[in-house]
Amino acid sequence: MKLKAGIINVTGYAGSELARLLYSHPQVELVSVTGRGAAGQKLTAVFPHLADIDLTITAELDKVDIAFSAMPHKASAEVILPLVKQGIRVIDISADFRLKDAAEYPAWYDFTHPAPAVLKDAVYGLPEFHRSAIAKAKLVANPGCYPTGALLALAPLVKEGLIYPDIIVDSKSGVSGSGRTLSLTAHYCEASDSVSAYSLKGHRHLPEIVQELKNINTALIPSVIFVPHLIPMTRGILSTCYAKIKEDRLAVARSELKKIYQNYYKGEAFVRITDQPPGTKQTWGSNFCLIHPVFDSRTGTAVIISCIDNLVKGAAGQAIQNMNIMFGFPEKAGLEALPVYP
Amino acid sequence: MKLKAGIINVTGYAGSELARLLYSHPQVELVSVTGRGAAGQKLTAVFPHLADIDLTITAELDKVDIAFSAMPHKASAEVILPLVKQGIRVIDISADFRLKDAAEYPAWYDFTHPAPAVLKDAVYGLPEFHRSAIAKAKLVANPGCYPTGALLALAPLVKEGLIYPDIIVDSKSGVSGSGRTLSLTAHYCEASDSVSAYSLKGHRHLPEIVQELKNINTALIPSVIFVPHLIPMTRGILSTCYAKIKEDRLAVARSELKKIYQNYYKGEAFVRITDQPPGTKQTWGSNFCLIHPVFDSRTGTAVIISCIDNLVKGAAGQAIQNMNIMFGFPEKAGLEALPVYP
Amino acid sequence: MKLKAGIINVTGYAGSELARLLYSHPQVELVSVTGRGAAGQKLTAVFPHLADIDLTITAELDKVDIAFSAMPHKASAEVILPLVKQGIRVIDISADFRLKDAAEYPAWYDFTHPAPAVLKDAVYGLPEFHRSAIAKAKLVANPGCYPTGALLALAPLVKEGLIYPDIIVDSKSGVSGSGRTLSLTAHYCEASDSVSAYSLKGHRHLPEIVQELKNINTALIPSVIFVPHLIPMTRGILSTCYAKIKEDRLAVARSELKKIYQNYYKGEAFVRITDQPPGTKQTWGSNFCLIHPVFDSRTGTAVIISCIDNLVKGAAGQAIQNMNIMFGFPEKAGLEALPVYP
Amino acid sequence: MKLKAGIINVTGYAGSELARLLYSHPQVELVSVTGRGAAGQKLTAVFPHLADIDLTITAELDKVDIAFSAMPHKASAEVILPLVKQGIRVIDISADFRLKDAAEYPAWYDFTHPAPAVLKDAVYGLPEFHRSAIAKAKLVANPGCYPTGALLALAPLVKEGLIYPDIIVDSKSGVSGSGRTLSLTAHYCEASDSVSAYSLKGHRHLPEIVQELKNINTALIPSVIFVPHLIPMTRGILSTCYAKIKEDRLAVARSELKKIYQNYYKGEAFVRITDQPPGTKQTWGSNFCLIHPVFDSRTGTAVIISCIDNLVKGAAGQAIQNMNIMFGFPEKAGLEALPVYP
Repeated sequence: MKLKAGIINVTGYAGSELARLLYSHPQVELVSVTGRGAAGQKLTAVFPHLADIDLTITAELDKVDIAFSAMPHKASAEVILPLVKQGIRVIDISADFRLKDAAEYPAWYDFTHPAPAVLKDAVYGLPEFHRSAIAKAKLVANPGCYPTGALLALAPLVKEGLIYPDIIVDSKSGVSGSGRTLSLTAHYCEASDSVSAYSLKGHRHLPEIVQELKNINTALIPSVIFVPHLIPMTRGILSTCYAKIKEDRLAVARSELKKIYQNYYKGEAFVRITDQPPGTKQTWGSNFCLIHPVFDSRTGTAVIISCIDNLVKGAAGQAIQNMNIMFGFPEKAGLEALPVYP
Repeated sequence: MKLKAGIINVTGYAGSELARLLYSHPQVELVSVTGRGAAGQKLTAVFPHLADIDLTITAELDKVDIAFSAMPHKASAEVILPLVKQGIRVIDISADFRLKDAAEYPAWYDFTHPAPAVLKDAVYGLPEFHRSAIAKAKLVANPGCYPTGALLALAPLVKEGLIYPDIIVDSKSGVSGSGRTLSLTAHYCEASDSVSAYSLKGHRHLPEIVQELKNINTALIPSVIFVPHLIPMTRGILSTCYAKIKEDRLAVARSELKKIYQNYYKGEAFVRITDQPPGTKQTWGSNFCLIHPVFDSRTGTAVIISCIDNLVKGAAGQAIQNMNIMFGFPEKAGLEALPVYP
Repeated sequence: MKLKAGIINVTGYAGSELARLLYSHPQVELVSVTGRGAAGQKLTAVFPHLADIDLTITAELDKVDIAFSAMPHKASAEVILPLVKQGIRVIDISADFRLKDAAEYPAWYDFTHPAPAVLKDAVYGLPEFHRSAIAKAKLVANPGCYPTGALLALAPLVKEGLIYPDIIVDSKSGVSGSGRTLSLTAHYCEASDSVSAYSLKGHRHLPEIVQELKNINTALIPSVIFVPHLIPMTRGILSTCYAKIKEDRLAVARSELKKIYQNYYKGEAFVRITDQPPGTKQTWGSNFCLIHPVFDSRTGTAVIISCIDNLVKGAAGQAIQNMNIMFGFPEKAGLEALPVYP
Repeated sequence: MKLKAGIINVTGYAGSELARLLYSHPQVELVSVTGRGAAGQKLTAVFPHLADIDLTITAELDKVDIAFSAMPHKASAEVILPLVKQGIRVIDISADFRLKDAAEYPAWYDFTHPAPAVLKDAVYGLPEFHRSAIAKAKLVANPGCYPTGALLALAPLVKEGLIYPDIIVDSKSGVSGSGRTLSLTAHYCEASDSVSAYSLKGHRHLPEIVQELKNINTALIPSVIFVPHLIPMTRGILSTCYAKIKEDRLAVARSELKKIYQNYYKGEAFVRITDQPPGTKQTWGSNFCLIHPVFDSRTGTAVIISCIDNLVKGAAGQAIQNMNIMFGFPEKAGLEALPVYP
């Protein structure tokens, strides 16, 4: 019998992407989808591309074995906490359980966390870092799209202690990262043919990046600048990460950088170290993270580039990867499809 | 044991799309890929998104059970004819065996057909029209991308004898329709932010459309104008088809147009009659054809809109659908993935 | 002394485009701009590209010699009628004074026209058709974007009586045609990489096209289908118009179609008959209308293609052309800049 | 009498953009355009948007007062040197006279410079840095597109000695930066919906950036990493520049960064310090450079963002600005048009 899955707030892009991917999952059946405002409508009325999924959007979630929450932050915690109490395993796409320090929520998300005690039990769902904890987790906090790309790019450098603490993450994201909610920024005429930086006073994904970098190597107190940019494309995040190599590790960086990355991600199904600079399009619709590490010998700096599809490895795909780990399915189940290119 | 498949000229977009889709096919193994100029390279060196397929591009095709040719016209016939003689079943993505009248080739394709006798045995591979013949075919001529969308849109009207012979097909295609070969027309700076019509003196897909419409209803001598347009997107064809309803069929058209379409395509896995005007993006990466029939009561005209992904239902996906029929596999095998949206 | 111009509702795309173009006009000074909701803000705060125009958006229009209204329909009439009474000359970008028959307004625009008597005095502002009336007009109804392209494409055919009454206008528009107001349709992720038809039950621009075609040749009772499509680009409309040539005019159409168009638009500064199929990008930012007439000899049909920039010749540029005519300025004043390409 | 201008190699995007802009210049007449391969064709046959310019492309340049060379590097020097000897003033869009050290040419451009002695007389044509030298120059080396944006962003920081020598320039460019020459990278299907970094081993514009930074402040030995990225848009470069503020200048940076920029560019017609993060689209078709300086107080780093239109301020517009300075025209002549937005 298949595992019963439900999606809370299926009407955004993370929610609909979960539905798309779960449809192809051999061990899971999507049985319940909820949506604020769209309750009572057929799923296909909102998303014609999901016409093969015969479900009606409801206000409340049916009984499920695994619940995915694609609610916005704050609202997500409210809907998830009762489920967790009932013993239902939950994967939260929102930020509500990603940060371990409850004090970060008022600072970055403008609300007081309703259940600080739960934060320590929630597992940060980056499988490449926390696989065994995820397997046992009741509540998985699915990483943000930017942190996913940045952390996978930086982890080997940090783990190996190759770099000084100053790290720059310059990220370029497609428009779907800001969701399906209408905004002038995401209006076609404004977003097309243009690039701009935003959140220059500090983006909410910064504390998440810092928290996890510290976990990787407690000896490093990272000082991170993270500047996100909006790019005229629908899917994809490319992060260009810069960090100076420590004087005494320059020789290693020069000769072994790529090998260090290959070793670090050995056996990982979704991380690929590339020989050529990757384009985000090479991940379109797939759960891959492509990483291209470069040593800039002129300046002694590591330049690490990563590419993901923000809706898959950066959201719904990673959530399914987490579910697979939690329930003992093959980690690639439901995620085997190759990127759609071009 | 899996069926062994090969792709001749994998280095274009139809070829790489075949590889992508075959990778997910449960009954088929891709064992050989050829490419002019790229022989000796790993497939992944040309197409990084296909990194999970561990094949080297060769000059000649290995022994296979089914060969797909994605060669350009004329060259395709040359490479296919020896295979057919050897008894290998072949699906030809090119136009070389689509037209039954050999005299059309010099007129539309500038070459004399090398094997006119083979034309009558080749089966035009539009499964919704010729399923039983495809099942037995040695050589399937995979339809052109424009004819696929136009024919599926027009067939019920023509079959039911609802319309006068004057038919207009106004098609809008993404740039991948012109392939991976470099051209100023497909240069990003020229193609983006612009729409233009082309082939106004007659596009090569016109005789194919006319031939098949005649097959559907020999009582209709269709007079077709087909105007293709280039649209700034990568994938997708939307065809808007116009035909006046016969005076004595106006009442039927007014009340039953949608039902006629639903009946005509009853049981078809990949054709969907939509309630809302469809967008090409709703088919991205999938084998669906979405059809939206409208009766314009002001003028007594049928306006039929169809959307496909030109690289899937318009090329590689339809080829796999044909292979499934030829070898008795479920018709959706390898084609179950939902469209990637947005 | 320069003519004083004002823009009512500068905060949309037609309004901001008027400001951009007026800035370069040698005989005109933009002195007042209004905006619902944005009153009190600097113009540059809303539109950074207009930083060289030092104006504050106000709630009410200052005293001007010429007022442009870029208000939505219905609201536009309300704000314009008092101005007209005061003797201020007005150019209305909205549809409120385009249709001569007041009964069309409830049918197509869902409101009862507040001043039917004024309709007959308002002049339909297509300079190529009504130049002398525009020169004397108090109130010019600036044409819709689609009608501009369609009418310029069809006029010579209709005037010369070359065609039967059945006319098909298949138009492809960039997203800015639907304005700056937020909508899911215009969300980047939904609009990019997709084409769709809309308003299949009848678009509001249809009665406008029909009205003006009748004016050109009262002997023709045109039967028009108009199907607009949304294209993933910001600016531009390409209209492909189809009409069968009368049996007894086939020879003329075959040999003289281009010459007929050249003669009809002889001396027109902004209409250009092209040898090659034009792309909308060739008009980007300019007031040109490119027309490419083709005779399809297989079917005896005229296929006429026109391209405009919907915000310029389809809105703000044409409004300035009308102003130039009204005030005796050179017709190209302020409109000399070449298209920005690529 | 107007100044007579000629364009060598008008058939690329820099060349055609020069023609577009010169057409609007009140003091200049474009009298001669050359093109490899296109000689004998009308300019409008290659560029329909330039139909108002009635010129035939020739193999050799006619007699002119000012010659713009839009030839590729190496070829440009060959064609320019004889002109310079004849006393014709020349503005070179290529890189051939930008670098003062002849030894850089074999290292970065793979050729031995044919006239090292001329390098010292050529003036680097960034007007905001070298206005008075440009006024007297016989030969102006027009800056590269990336250096223009990066240098304008960094100059005030460097001049004021605010920063440590480590500088990171992360640039995002539209596809027209790679010109009109066909390449797979610029193929619509490959470039759309994707972002990628390139030239990770060192881009040719790096030595140019370093040379000019050293000129600004000889006390700083800058250590620059420059990583260009290809973005799916036609025009525009956004550069995000990172540099740590010196410990003893943190207070100044915190409180006066914007003011320092405003003072530095006081009176500059084309440089604008913005309050909000700018988008490249706000410069489309114009000669503006928008700069947004930010002090990141968490890390003590200056983050400076600049936006230009790479074909205007990054090439043709800057060339015209240089010409205006050389001939004593108002610096904005021919460059007054506002950006075309959206």
